Amino acid sequence: MTATAYVHGYDPREADRLHDQAHALAELLHAGTTYASGAHVLEAGCGTGAQTVELARRSPGTWFTSVDRSAESIDTARHRVDTAGLANVAFRQADIMALRFAPQSFDHVFVCFVLEHLPQPADAVAALVRLVRPGGTLTVIEGDHGTACFHPDAPAARAAIACQVALQQRAGGDPFIGRRLHPLLATAGLHDVRVTPRFVYTDGSRPGFADTFTRRTFTAMIDGVRTAALAAGLTDAARFDDGVRALQRTADPDGSFCYTFFKATAVVR
Amino acid sequence: MTATAYVHGYDPREADRLHDQAHALAELLHAGTTYASGAHVLEAGCGTGAQTVELARRSPGTWFTSVDRSAESIDTARHRVDTAGLANVAFRQADIMALRFAPQSFDHVFVCFVLEHLPQPADAVAALVRLVRPGGTLTVIEGDHGTACFHPDAPAARAAIACQVALQQRAGGDPFIGRRLHPLLATAGLHDVRVTPRFVYTDGSRPGFADTFTRRTFTAMIDGVRTAALAAGLTDAARFDDGVRALQRTADPDGSFCYTFFKATAVVR
Repeated sequence: MTATAYVHGYDPREADRLHDQAHALAELLHAGTTYASGAHVLEAGCGTGAQTVELARRSPGTWFTSVDRSAESIDTARHRVDTAGLANVAFRQADIMALRFAPQSFDHVFVCFVLEHLPQPADAVAALVRLVRPGGTLTVIEGDHGTACFHPDAPAARAAIACQVALQQRAGGDPFIGRRLHPLLATAGLHDVRVTPRFVYTDGSRPGFADTFTRRTFTAMIDGVRTAALAAGLTDAARFDDGVRALQRTADPDGSFCYTFFKATAVVR
Repeated sequence: MTATAYVHGYDPREADRLHDQAHALAELLHAGTTYASGAHVLEAGCGTGAQTVELARRSPGTWFTSVDRSAESIDTARHRVDTAGLANVAFRQADIMALRFAPQSFDHVFVCFVLEHLPQPADAVAALVRLVRPGGTLTVIEGDHGTACFHPDAPAARAAIACQVALQQRAGGDPFIGRRLHPLLATAGLHDVRVTPRFVYTDGSRPGFADTFTRRTFTAMIDGVRTAALAAGLTDAARFDDGVRALQRTADPDGSFCYTFFKATAVVR
């Protein structure tokens, strides 16, 4: 038996496979979102550009203005967009609650994984809607941690997720916002509000996707709050690490994992 | 203003609407399931025939043998099938754990909302698989009460669902079986096991479907265990009824409701 050094993502075929897995999630979230050539679209809260690249690639003739309050995140996002060879994105550093664009200066607004962090998501929606011309659209994608469901089930895994939930709530966010996107947009005076849940399911028939989504997306996100959860006294290290291991365990061939993202579109009056 | 007597389902247009809503759920569950003309299919645990009618209608040239241990349920199912004008179903009263059919005497087996009630679902799968010819298929549809997720969220609603969960578990069943259909079938020696989750989502944009699914399917099922839950001392009447009202509330225009069914297909070696 020959020992071969193996680094995740290093082998070109492995890199292709990882790209395909990541592509599967991007397709799930972005399916149905393309904009007209020449349209101006505001991406509010672009973070490090994970969605920016998808947006710009899927609508190559559309002009995107991607805004984030973190200059560091924008640097990363700009590098990602440049590396992808995309030239239809302008970046601007700003707080999305205090944008200085003229009213109705965009055809559409796109928001992904942002409202869940805001204490007043309805105010953010109202502020963004004012930037869109009548007949333009608002698209919102958010998660909902209450939809996480897995086999084998484990109290420690649920407790680890509850740490992330508690931290997000203490920071004023709503980790269960996905299920209420419809009323949130409908009460903002938008019309033709449509919510299409995007259901992620992994099991032993797709081990690559289980690894990508269950381990390296969802579980990695939960593991990312370890320090904060311990500092806040929400758990102890042994219990938290048990939970993370229990979540990783659900990506084994005899496990399964479910999570639902919610995507809403609505038309501005 | 004229007072008009209104009975749910009495007005012909209303009856059409209800039929459309029920049809939406049937389509969600049965999409992808049609059998060849001349094939023999065993429906194991047909109950009162809700799925039998769908099966027989969607595969008019297929012969179905629908089995249930309750003679009363079979009477209802036979009446349903006759009323629908279907002539391709034979009924037999028997316990699905002790069927006397010859090995490999069916081309396919279909099981819906049955395994969740059995203390040993793996034994039932093994027994059913023996009745299928090599190359035939097994189709299983089950719910998973852990996937219920709604807005507004309410502890009383969760407590009412927990009553149903506890009663089903005490009777030896598994109300969370949906998420483990893949390992259940894969460890039974079946191959090409595929699970496709069937995600139900209702919100204010489809009030008819919210009424049909959230109120008159899911909440009605929970409300159906009221007597048993009180008798078992799992709750008190006021708390349980609060929970049922809270579930009904989620079908209001500003509410939402999610539930996931799991459908598995596999090929017999």
